[in-house]
Amino acid sequence: MKRGVYMNKNKVVRLAVVGGGRGGTFSKVLSNLADKAQLVAVCDHDEAVLDRWKDEFPEVRSYDNYERLLDDGQVDAVFLATPLFIHARQAIQALQAGKHVISEVIAITTLDEGWELIETVEKTGLTYMMAENYCFMRPNMMIENMVQHGLFGDLVHVEGGYIHDIRNLTHYPDGKLTWRGNLLKSYRGNTYPTHSLGPVAKWLDLHRNGEDQFESLTTFVSEGLAGQIYYKELFGKEHPGAGPDHWKQGDSAVTLIRTKKGKLITLRYDIQSARPHNMTHYALQGTKGAYLSPRHHNEDPLIWLEGRSPGISSDGSAEWETLWNYADEWEHPLWQSWGSVAEQAGHGGGDFSGFPSAATDCTDSGNTELHMTESYTSTVGWVPSRIADTNSCRTIRRFLEW
Amino acid sequence: MKRGVYMNKNKVVRLAVVGGGRGGTFSKVLSNLADKAQLVAVCDHDEAVLDRWKDEFPEVRSYDNYERLLDDGQVDAVFLATPLFIHARQAIQALQAGKHVISEVIAITTLDEGWELIETVEKTGLTYMMAENYCFMRPNMMIENMVQHGLFGDLVHVEGGYIHDIRNLTHYPDGKLTWRGNLLKSYRGNTYPTHSLGPVAKWLDLHRNGEDQFESLTTFVSEGLAGQIYYKELFGKEHPGAGPDHWKQGDSAVTLIRTKKGKLITLRYDIQSARPHNMTHYALQGTKGAYLSPRHHNEDPLIWLEGRSPGISSDGSAEWETLWNYADEWEHPLWQSWGSVAEQAGHGGGDFSGFPSAATDCTDSGNTELHMTESYTSTVGWVPSRIADTNSCRTIRRFLEW
Repeated sequence: MKRGVYMNKNKVVRLAVVGGGRGGTFSKVLSNLADKAQLVAVCDHDEAVLDRWKDEFPEVRSYDNYERLLDDGQVDAVFLATPLFIHARQAIQALQAGKHVISEVIAITTLDEGWELIETVEKTGLTYMMAENYCFMRPNMMIENMVQHGLFGDLVHVEGGYIHDIRNLTHYPDGKLTWRGNLLKSYRGNTYPTHSLGPVAKWLDLHRNGEDQFESLTTFVSEGLAGQIYYKELFGKEHPGAGPDHWKQGDSAVTLIRTKKGKLITLRYDIQSARPHNMTHYALQGTKGAYLSPRHHNEDPLIWLEGRSPGISSDGSAEWETLWNYADEWEHPLWQSWGSVAEQAGHGGGDFSGFPSAATDCTDSGNTELHMTESYTSTVGWVPSRIADTNSCRTIRRFLEW
Repeated sequence: MKRGVYMNKNKVVRLAVVGGGRGGTFSKVLSNLADKAQLVAVCDHDEAVLDRWKDEFPEVRSYDNYERLLDDGQVDAVFLATPLFIHARQAIQALQAGKHVISEVIAITTLDEGWELIETVEKTGLTYMMAENYCFMRPNMMIENMVQHGLFGDLVHVEGGYIHDIRNLTHYPDGKLTWRGNLLKSYRGNTYPTHSLGPVAKWLDLHRNGEDQFESLTTFVSEGLAGQIYYKELFGKEHPGAGPDHWKQGDSAVTLIRTKKGKLITLRYDIQSARPHNMTHYALQGTKGAYLSPRHHNEDPLIWLEGRSPGISSDGSAEWETLWNYADEWEHPLWQSWGSVAEQAGHGGGDFSGFPSAATDCTDSGNTELHMTESYTSTVGWVPSRIADTNSCRTIRRFLEW
């Protein structure tokens, strides 16, 4: 076990950010975690990005080559904020070089990559965390806490939705496709499911204690029109994206999953349609109550709990109340500790709240299983994209081996 | 063609209600339609129900036998407000006796019944209407009007949800099951899909002009816990319903449908789970805008239309606005004519608004195709329940023949 080989004596994790564009947004977060993690290096292939880092953080070492970063013995862990297609390869390389890994989603894009990543984590004994930040948003954590204390009874149905028009992030100013554009061009299905699946998978305690796991799933995809319209308007009808056959992805995808214990999961994914964004649609139905996220940022999350909330279900008198009525009693312990700091970070606190947990896990002896199972969730989350074209529905036997 | 054989000269339809319990709620509606329809008879097997009708409507003839009602030459049309398992049989009998038919949902419960009903309508030339009242609710009609005028562009995804804990309607006071109880006991799947499917099928113009129709569908069903809990609490653990294997139905079912043109439909069905009701969840996504129904009765339906509503989709600034901002411009013509009367009826006006259309159709020469195709929608809506147990997903080839 190489665990902790490069660990600093005072247990502050020396962290390198890989992908300086997006990764830069986390530097503010880290300044609040000085006793747990220290930003010591950055890696990016773009000289202009590195120059900005040098100006802002002159004490941070900069690398334009990933292999040379991994040779830096004064780096304990890497934070991968790179395009999703290279996450798995970079994570495996880092683990092999003795570094702990925090990876942004999606963790892997093929099952083979998934197995290789899992085996590398197990062989090295290092910590790997898939940084699914939406699990760490305040309402999602509060619901998780209430589920664990049985307030909703047994869960039967959960929903997650990631609806977020990012057509303007799919191309460079000259019309060339970014990695997000290539994702739409080359894949069809629910290709980015972890933001919607992550929190509800935690509520269901899936793939963690071995009691429940995916049994069968299907993904249906609509026709794709939004990409054509957008590219035709912006770049003219000569742009390949303005044609009818350029984009493999459709505008909306919906995935249904049934678990071995009979829980039902509905996930919606749409990153092209014209509308107000809703990246954080969630719902939960249990035998003793229900939860429903807001439709937009000016609404409250709603909850109804049998015997506590107003009215009776079976006679039609039940009335929702705001989730915040339960904040004093059921705020997640992690949010109680870090909430005021997390609220300054992005994605509803999610960009922050995972860090204390990850940093603790890299320094203390302890449970790597937690984060490993989150990478499992990512793996199976990716699978729907592989079967969407046929609209087929089958038991993914491989899940049973896990 | 027997059409109009029994028609009254002044074109007022002489209507008989079949099923005096629920059917009685429509008598108020009919009083507002005196120039179009007249309630002349009622049929029920329960003497107590008939006695109440005699007290309240002494001029209405009462029958305790359906065949004798059908022999009444002074009845032009029957309104079937009976348990769903007998709708198709009663409709076919009435048509064969020369009566027009308005049937509550579900219209049919097997494909064989569906074909027999269709053939009987075509042979007799009489009018058959499936009274899917949710199509006639105010916001659903306004959205239909806006869709038809292209305000949402091309539709790509629609949602319908019928979430309505009616466990207290599944049994008599002594614990014996009602027909609703037997539906839960004997069938598994999305067994009552027309309230959620009806309005969105109209928005998509499905199975009407021949341009688009269902291509493939699947239904996933959760485990069933709510029935056991309810029956155990109310009747004790000796009641068969308190046992784990009594109910074939699960608590929540979700159906995915893809049409030939690539439109995606998501339907949710739950009539047992403990929570505030939401019988009218609807959503729509088009290439130029989106619609989202309220979560409860104190919220507005929300709309966003490109170029009209605030903000831009692709830069994240788009903001919902209330649908009622568009009422002056886009109120459905039928609601403009009848809205003030319809608001006094049940189900958000839906219990009323279908009647003027149906009454007109029974008296004027004209289009029976409209209502026939609505019975098609019902037919295919029922199909998911037949395939839910296997979680299988396949093309229902029979749709293609229609």
